[in-house]
Amino acid sequence: MLGASGVGADPLALLQALAARRSVDAHALRPPAPPPEVLQRAAELTLGAPDHQGLRPVRFVHVGSEERAALGELFARAAAATGRDASGVINARERAFTGPGLLAVVVRIRDDVPDVPPYEQWLSAGAALMILLQALHLQGYGAKVLGGRAARSEVVRRAFCTEGEQLACWIITGTRDPAAEEPKPPDMRRELLTDWSPAPS
Amino acid sequence: MLGASGVGADPLALLQALAARRSVDAHALRPPAPPPEVLQRAAELTLGAPDHQGLRPVRFVHVGSEERAALGELFARAAAATGRDASGVINARERAFTGPGLLAVVVRIRDDVPDVPPYEQWLSAGAALMILLQALHLQGYGAKVLGGRAARSEVVRRAFCTEGEQLACWIITGTRDPAAEEPKPPDMRRELLTDWSPAPS
Repeated sequence: MLGASGVGADPLALLQALAARRSVDAHALRPPAPPPEVLQRAAELTLGAPDHQGLRPVRFVHVGSEERAALGELFARAAAATGRDASGVINARERAFTGPGLLAVVVRIRDDVPDVPPYEQWLSAGAALMILLQALHLQGYGAKVLGGRAARSEVVRRAFCTEGEQLACWIITGTRDPAAEEPKPPDMRRELLTDWSPAPS
Repeated sequence: MLGASGVGADPLALLQALAARRSVDAHALRPPAPPPEVLQRAAELTLGAPDHQGLRPVRFVHVGSEERAALGELFARAAAATGRDASGVINARERAFTGPGLLAVVVRIRDDVPDVPPYEQWLSAGAALMILLQALHLQGYGAKVLGGRAARSEVVRRAFCTEGEQLACWIITGTRDPAAEEPKPPDMRRELLTDWSPAPS
């Protein structure tokens, strides 16, 4: 039964499920990866992120297991292009095989929308990313956001993005190894929520 | 009962609750505003957002109902400082009374962390913002992110931020008027999730 806000009868259970989501490291992610319908549902849910003027700054590109070798060659080329040595190139190539499932997060940040400055578009993209991670979690899959050098390489960007887009980060995803150590809960920070008091005038 | 991923027995109900969240416009938000414990719980949950190197780019500042008049004076001063006319100043002052509950979203973006470029910090802040909105929703409160001129005014920034921080946006929140029109579901976008194919080499 859903109330006016669309929330079911046990919001505390929902909150608990939301709170239980943590980034799952690559070493704790096992096959199977989320199947296409799970990824599709997660991607569709991201449309619920706040998005001033509906700019839709983010899209997701799935790298299938058959494409990992090609991605590895791309990473290797990107590493070589930045002058890394042979072992650096090998490491870069291997990184393309991280995680049972892999998505590229592609962002288009426009600078020609006066009412929506670029940082608001980044906030919107981050909100969409969060929904994707939660939707994977709620469907039983662990995930983690990875940044790093390869995401910022022009060689890699061109293989994923059209003009005006950039590759913001990667998402690795799979089935959380139940034997893996529980991720630590984050530290509280006292000043996370404070009350405003105006300066004496 | 929670499984290995911390997800309860009915993940589809959880997904549905997640999917049901929409931004609720100011005119559809009625008192009561979320009480302090609801805001506190929502803020604490935001610590579950991805946050490379634990930079914690975001914090929230609650503007109580007794501080709205002072905020209004601040908005009026900010409007006057940018040369707006008398009616513009009056409008700006009135804007401080929008929404039964009001939070300022304060962000600190560091440019001295080579592994975490500013855009990754914005993504993290956006993810935290999303969790806050969802946690309000799951506790029965509607909310909406507002940007706008006042968030970018230096007069207002100084009243909320310390050195190196900026006021990214506002969140208005309250009880959703059940008589208000349902927010529209977002349009689907075909290319939201695609499969990568490497360019022929």
